[in-house]
Amino acid sequence: MSQSVNTVTLRKPYLLFLGEETNPLKAKTAFGLRDWVPESCIGQMHMPGGHVDLGLPELDPSSASAAGARSLLIGVTPVGGRIPSHWAQALLAAVQAGLDIVSGLHTPLESVPGLRQAAEQAGVALIDVRRPPANLPRATGKRRRGKRAAMVGTDCALGKKYTALALAKAMQTQGIDADFRATGQTGIMIAGAGIAIDAVIADFIAGAAECISPEAAPDHWDLIEGQGSIYHPAYAGVTLGLLHGSQPDALILCHDPSRTHLVSWPDFSLPSLQEARQLYLHIARLTNPDVRVAAVSLNTSALDDAAAHEALARAERELGVPAFDPMRTPLDRAVASLLG
Amino acid sequence: MSQSVNTVTLRKPYLLFLGEETNPLKAKTAFGLRDWVPESCIGQMHMPGGHVDLGLPELDPSSASAAGARSLLIGVTPVGGRIPSHWAQALLAAVQAGLDIVSGLHTPLESVPGLRQAAEQAGVALIDVRRPPANLPRATGKRRRGKRAAMVGTDCALGKKYTALALAKAMQTQGIDADFRATGQTGIMIAGAGIAIDAVIADFIAGAAECISPEAAPDHWDLIEGQGSIYHPAYAGVTLGLLHGSQPDALILCHDPSRTHLVSWPDFSLPSLQEARQLYLHIARLTNPDVRVAAVSLNTSALDDAAAHEALARAERELGVPAFDPMRTPLDRAVASLLG
Repeated sequence: MSQSVNTVTLRKPYLLFLGEETNPLKAKTAFGLRDWVPESCIGQMHMPGGHVDLGLPELDPSSASAAGARSLLIGVTPVGGRIPSHWAQALLAAVQAGLDIVSGLHTPLESVPGLRQAAEQAGVALIDVRRPPANLPRATGKRRRGKRAAMVGTDCALGKKYTALALAKAMQTQGIDADFRATGQTGIMIAGAGIAIDAVIADFIAGAAECISPEAAPDHWDLIEGQGSIYHPAYAGVTLGLLHGSQPDALILCHDPSRTHLVSWPDFSLPSLQEARQLYLHIARLTNPDVRVAAVSLNTSALDDAAAHEALARAERELGVPAFDPMRTPLDRAVASLLG
Repeated sequence: MSQSVNTVTLRKPYLLFLGEETNPLKAKTAFGLRDWVPESCIGQMHMPGGHVDLGLPELDPSSASAAGARSLLIGVTPVGGRIPSHWAQALLAAVQAGLDIVSGLHTPLESVPGLRQAAEQAGVALIDVRRPPANLPRATGKRRRGKRAAMVGTDCALGKKYTALALAKAMQTQGIDADFRATGQTGIMIAGAGIAIDAVIADFIAGAAECISPEAAPDHWDLIEGQGSIYHPAYAGVTLGLLHGSQPDALILCHDPSRTHLVSWPDFSLPSLQEARQLYLHIARLTNPDVRVAAVSLNTSALDDAAAHEALARAERELGVPAFDPMRTPLDRAVASLLG
């Protein structure tokens, strides 16, 4: 995988830290990693009282390090999204065992007393994945070699990351040179690289997007995780900058057919698939005049089999491209359409 | 003027600091302030060797303070955009005289040795206008009372700020309750308030825009400085977030008829006025379904009188709304169109 210098970069494999968590729902990050990149998860580690089980070997930092782990990754979200002070000892032990620490929580790792000095001494890194790299460039707008597909949505939180991951995996399985490219914190942990695009200074959104999917071999495909939606009144600026910097050859339009309004925004109704196709193509043409919509990804999780089948068939009729649900249907036709 | 708590806010009037500058082109900020808000400019101050003349009384910090000045404003841009170390003494004297310091330069004011402590002691503020306020909210998308006009452009740097300033002044002259709302550093200095929208974290662009033009009386007009262009491959995300958060009732489409391509971006041709109207209305309808294009502002500075007249007449024919050049023609018809 070609990698830009201007992205957050993590060292794999991980020791997944689960704290004293007892609720699997608070360990979504750890479960996501185990499911998507099992080869990058070498073990799990609890604090006394914790018993969420990923089915991985129980390791302490030094045995994880001896087994090849390169980072301890915080895989749970405590109340408030902060690092509890009583974790300090475990994090210090990990650093002393030569592991980087990777966190997506709000508390900066450097604010844990003594951790920064210990990391410097041990020559390891403390990585807050939500923090963008320093010195991001402004966008150049210059065309890059390689093929890119951008996941774009009629709303937030409807499966854009999952769609990109599933397409990358399906393409790799077919022997196609393809990478998932991460733009949010869970995605970065899965990919081991990326930039949390919504945390970048506004002037640098498109520039960061150019770093996320760097120049590549002509037949290489990047499957780029989307963020927000052009139809979202709070986040559309992020969506547009990401789209422009990605200069996609193809769009995968992601949609939840059971929604009538933006999640938690009852005043904003969802666009039709045709309307969304028209606007996304219109704005994406600025940096890639040949962009096309290659497929539709539907999140049919709220529908029974018959209704899901009907929704997929209707979407295909409406847009004339393959429709799929990465949780439910094969992806072959979508991949074929992407390859053009 | 109603003012949000979440904007940078400056104390006027200003003592304009000109350093040892000898080139008037490097003092554009100071000249802009003198021209647009002469009532806010109480005097000028030089370092030895400087002789740029704004035609204002020459004052030192204590006499300026005695004459009513509330801030020393750095009105020049030294090489590299940084604060030279030999300015420290003058800035310390200003702080000790009870003046805030206002800067748009890259060097943070707090990095000038001793300045922060002196400011704390004197109870004055050090304000880097490019730095956004802390704790900006995410956008709510909720409609606010009051009327808003957004300046939008086919490119950057073609007169959006000047257009908003001129319209606000023309409306105020007619007794209309109107404010210029600033989204960039020179605009903030002129208005005494605002947010440098391109320096905001991406997730908060639209939220910052909501703070810039807060709820107001039903017949109050905000004339909102634009940033970037939806057609700019590096900055369109900023433009879109600003537009969504502004939820404008009216757009003023700003254009330079002598350009064929984006300034410094020869690979990107300018859209036609109709194309720009269509896309801007399409995206602006998300947060204000009743938005309309009220007028066209042309930057005809590169054209002679006959060509300028012809360009204005052509723009009117193309869009069916008044066209004006705020440097060259009356604004009455544009204001009338804005009022609807």
